[in-house]
Parts: sequence; C-alpha cells; structure tokens
Amino acid sequence: MKIAVDGMGGDFAPSEIVMGAVEAARTYKVDIVLVGPRGLMESELSKHDCSGLNIEVVHTDQYLLEGEPPAFALRRKPEASVFIATKLVKEGKADAIVSAGPTGGVVAAALYMLGTVSGFTRPVVGGAFLRFAPNTVMLDLGSNVDCKPQELVDFAIVGTVYAKKMLGIENPTIALLSVGAEEGKGNAQAKEAYTLLKNSGLNFIGNVEGYDIPLGKANVIVCDGFVGNIVVKFTEQLGKVICNWLEQELKDHLDRDKLAAITSELLKATNVADFAGGGPLWAVNGVACVAHGRCKAPEFCKAIGQAKLAVEEDWVGTLKLELDAARGKLKIGQS
Amino acid sequence: MKIAVDGMGGDFAPSEIVMGAVEAARTYKVDIVLVGPRGLMESELSKHDCSGLNIEVVHTDQYLLEGEPPAFALRRKPEASVFIATKLVKEGKADAIVSAGPTGGVVAAALYMLGTVSGFTRPVVGGAFLRFAPNTVMLDLGSNVDCKPQELVDFAIVGTVYAKKMLGIENPTIALLSVGAEEGKGNAQAKEAYTLLKNSGLNFIGNVEGYDIPLGKANVIVCDGFVGNIVVKFTEQLGKVICNWLEQELKDHLDRDKLAAITSELLKATNVADFAGGGPLWAVNGVACVAHGRCKAPEFCKAIGQAKLAVEEDWVGTLKLELDAARGKLKIGQS
Repeated sequence: MKIAVDGMGGDFAPSEIVMGAVEAARTYKVDIVLVGPRGLMESELSKHDCSGLNIEVVHTDQYLLEGEPPAFALRRKPEASVFIATKLVKEGKADAIVSAGPTGGVVAAALYMLGTVSGFTRPVVGGAFLRFAPNTVMLDLGSNVDCKPQELVDFAIVGTVYAKKMLGIENPTIALLSVGAEEGKGNAQAKEAYTLLKNSGLNFIGNVEGYDIPLGKANVIVCDGFVGNIVVKFTEQLGKVICNWLEQELKDHLDRDKLAAITSELLKATNVADFAGGGPLWAVNGVACVAHGRCKAPEFCKAIGQAKLAVEEDWVGTLKLELDAARGKLKIGQS
Repeated sequence: MKIAVDGMGGDFAPSEIVMGAVEAARTYKVDIVLVGPRGLMESELSKHDCSGLNIEVVHTDQYLLEGEPPAFALRRKPEASVFIATKLVKEGKADAIVSAGPTGGVVAAALYMLGTVSGFTRPVVGGAFLRFAPNTVMLDLGSNVDCKPQELVDFAIVGTVYAKKMLGIENPTIALLSVGAEEGKGNAQAKEAYTLLKNSGLNFIGNVEGYDIPLGKANVIVCDGFVGNIVVKFTEQLGKVICNWLEQELKDHLDRDKLAAITSELLKATNVADFAGGGPLWAVNGVACVAHGRCKAPEFCKAIGQAKLAVEEDWVGTLKLELDAARGKLKIGQS
C-alpha cells in the first residue's frame, strides 16, 4: 500500500511530517510518497534511518500557507503539494493522501480531484468533538452549510459508518439535532429530516436538543454544517475561557501542577482538534485524511495508520453500500 | 402603575410569588393585581403586612402546569392565571404582566392576547446568556426557528434596544453569527442577512464565529432561534458536565467549600436562567415579563421592578421607533 503525504502541510512541516512518515513506513509497513521540494524532503529524510523502507519523493516547489483561501490557491498554486499528493490518488499512483495542511486546502483538493460519492456535493466533516461524549459523532461540522433534509439523512449514514469503523460501535444510534425532543419540534429542515430519518431504516432514535450533546445521548448526531460549526467553535473557546477563569480562581487554592493538569485536560476535552486529531474526509471518492495542523511526528504517524485502515477496510466502498441500502429502504418506505 | 402578576406561575408559587409581589408593591410603589384562586391568594397575602399597599386579587381556578403544551393549554384552560393576567394588560386594566410560569405559556398568552409589533410573527427571546460575556446579548434563542434574513435585522434592532435599555450601552455593536469572519461566509440566510445589516444604518461590525461568542466580541449577536436555542441549551449542559468532572477531579485536592463555590459559580455562569433570571418578551405589543421558574420572592420582586422600568421607559414604543428608523434607512439604502 502506498500513502501520499503532503510534506509541506502543518505547523511543524516539513521536519515533523517527514519524521512521522518515516515512522509510519516502519510501523505500518506502508510505502510513502513524500510530496514537496525535493531538496528539503531529501535533507529531512537524511536525518533518519530509512533502510529497508520504500519512501520516494515527488517534487513540487509550491505549497499552501495557513489562511490562504483554498479555492483561490487552487488557481494560483495548482502545483501545491496537497494538490499533487491528491492527484497521485486520483491517478491510482497512491491509495490515500494524508495532509496536516489547512483543512480547506485538503477539502478543495479532495473535492476537485477525487470528487464526492453520489448524492453529496461536498465532503462531510465531523467526528467526536467533546471528550465528555467520546462515543458521539456529530456531523456535519462546517463543510455543508446549506442542507436539504435528505442531506441530513446522508450524514446519518456517514455517521453510522464512522461510528462503526472508527469507534467500533456495532449498531450506532442516530439522532437529529433540534430544539425539542418531540417529533414536530424544530425548523422546517429538521421537521422534514425527522420524517425521512424515521422512514430510513436507520437506527434513528429521534431528536436530541442542545442539552443532550454533552451527555452523549446518541452515537451519531446529525445537523447542518452551519449549526455544527458554530457549536464546535463555541465549545473550543468556551473551554479556553473556563480554563482562564479556573486559573484565576484557583491559583491561590490549588497545587500548581494539579491546576496545570486540570486546565490542560479541560482544554483537550473541549478542543476537537486536540481531542480527535483529525480523520478522513467523508463522502469523498477516495481516502483523504486530514491531520491536525499542530501535530508532531507521532500524531502524524497515527494519521497515516488511520489512512491505511481506511483503505484496508474499504471505508469508501462500505459507505457506498450503506448509502445504496438506506436509499433503497427509503424508496420502499415512500412507495 | 399597575402590574398584573400570575400568582400561580413558578416552582415556588404561590407563597414566594405573593411574597415577592408584596415586596415589590412597597419597594417600587406599584399597584399589584394578583391573579389566582382567591382563597389561596388571600391566605398568602394575610401572612404579610400589606398596610398602605394597593393589592387586589382577580380570581381564577385554572393555572398552567410545567410541561403542559402551551397551545393546548390555551384551548383547555382559557381561564389559566397567566392568560387572565395578560388579558388585564390587553384591556388596559394593567400596565404589564409578570409570570414565573412556563415560558411557553407566557409566550402563548403574549402572542394571542397582546400580539406582536409590526414585522414580527412571534415574540423574540434572548439576552446575555453567558457570564463570561455579560455585555453580549444573543437573540433569538428559540422562539423563531425559521427566519427570513430580514428577521435577523429585526432581531438586531431588538438587541440594540435591549443592550441600550438593559445593559446601559450607548451605541451597541451588532454582529451576525456565522461560520467565518469574512463577508460572504455562511449559509444562504447569513449571506443575505449580512448585506441587509450592512445597509441597515445599524452599528453592524460584521460576522462573528462560534469562537467569538464567549469573548463578547459584539454587544448584540443575532442568529435564528434554531441555532440560538441549541447553543444556549448546550452551554447549560456543558457547564453541568464540566462541574461534575471538576468535582471528581478536585475532591481530593481542594478545600470542600472552595470546590462548592467554584462549581456553583460555574453553573450560574453557564445557565442562562440563573444568570439572566428572565426578562421581557421582545417584539410583543405590550410589556410581558418572564421571571425564572425557580425564582423566590427577592428575584420575583426584581422582575416586577424590571417590568415597571419597561413601562416607564416605554421599551415597546422605543422599539417601534427604532424599527421604523431602521426600516426607513434600509429603504433608502436599497433605492
């Protein structure tokens, strides 16, 4: 198996990325294609023992910078490392692509080069975002901000595959995020989605409210990416604000190390990137994995491991099958 | 000035409600109409010194219970205390109504008896909901779940009056809740609302993201009630979950009283009802104030004080003027 790695993506690229890729080549016994400036890549590789490993370099001078609008970058930097790496997957020269670069860039690359699975117009992003509810996957978290009710059903199917494959939950429960528990509560989108989900043959348990998210009342919570994005970003900042407050309130009352441990734990628990560390872009016609921008070699190595698992276990194929099955049931339900 | 009080609304009704009303009559020099079963009301009144106070009782046997669907209750219990009390305002027999009963009941009473200000189909609920951002009013928080972009502009105007009158902020800044800071980020609703807000003549500072809510980046944050409701309920539960976690983590490391104080503070800071305690329903054609269901006499007394202020300072008239002014500017901006 061959994994294409965006050698220039991430806050600690290229050194930690190359180190992580070397580690992954040995740990997971995968071949690696490092995409980036040849001189830089080879100089980083020379720092490690690569004996017996199959690591090649594909040269490009261009790469994306944090904050660069991805669609713009696609036009201005068509040879950026993340695009070249994704192109390798498209051309069948690699089985998956992993990047710690800006998520928008990975999404743009996946969207334009690999395309999406039938019924999706954009990749789906999501996952467990709160350590207090580690077995709850919420999606979409920002990629799809204008959703038709049917798209929420599609997210439910993605979430089901996600929870099965990534959390090992056999028959994940699915809920719809709304403003009241009862059927009929919600905005027009939620009301329609409720009916579709009820008839979908999925393991739908009804609506959940904002109250229910931290309690993990369902394994999969579906919402449109507008709501999901706001909740996740809000969680991250609220975690920080509470930590700052705790530091002030407790600095004269609690052992310094314990206080540092508590706030560090709480920050991780409320920060999706720190907690989940990244994952595959769902609904893409191929395996494209986003690693956390701040990741160092060990985390990047794990991200490659996850990409390998996604290829081996054919997450893309599984998703397509589940989609076909659910859509079939939906048609029967409607007829 | 005469305030109609729902004598049967609230977890501690009628005793704490009647006590609070007596206190308010003396403190704020207002006349009170207590609505509820006459025997019960008079027996509660007899426990207090009411000399020199103008407190009358309007009898009704019916009252709403927590959890009763309000629309249903309106048909089944047309004589419920909250409806009778609101009717007194409608008929000009009282200047405002205050209830600690179920919010849905107060909303239904206000909607059906007082009606809404032009351009609104439902009352607007909102307020400062996070003590970490005490000068940030967010609205709508659940009353309006399907919003046209223009409604978000209307919420901005309500929020401006709210921040001026209730927080004493002279020229409140207004922001639109979205998924990115730049113009053009967001779903279709947010994009359209952005353009309307930019041309509204209001003190609009652009989009804020989920990250920005706890930082209080704007005095008024507008969103549709679907998003707002989810964020506020999520906040409440996340606060509880973090408190439980802190109790476990710190019980062997921190003085018991200090730990109790910290968790109690954090619960209040993240619980909109505990923090804000209630307030007027906005966009209603009259003054209808919701007090917190768990309030006791001192808080209920304050809620009556707030209702008095709303009448004296003519919040309803101010809102209508601001709406007319903003709509005038919007027309000029569009021409």
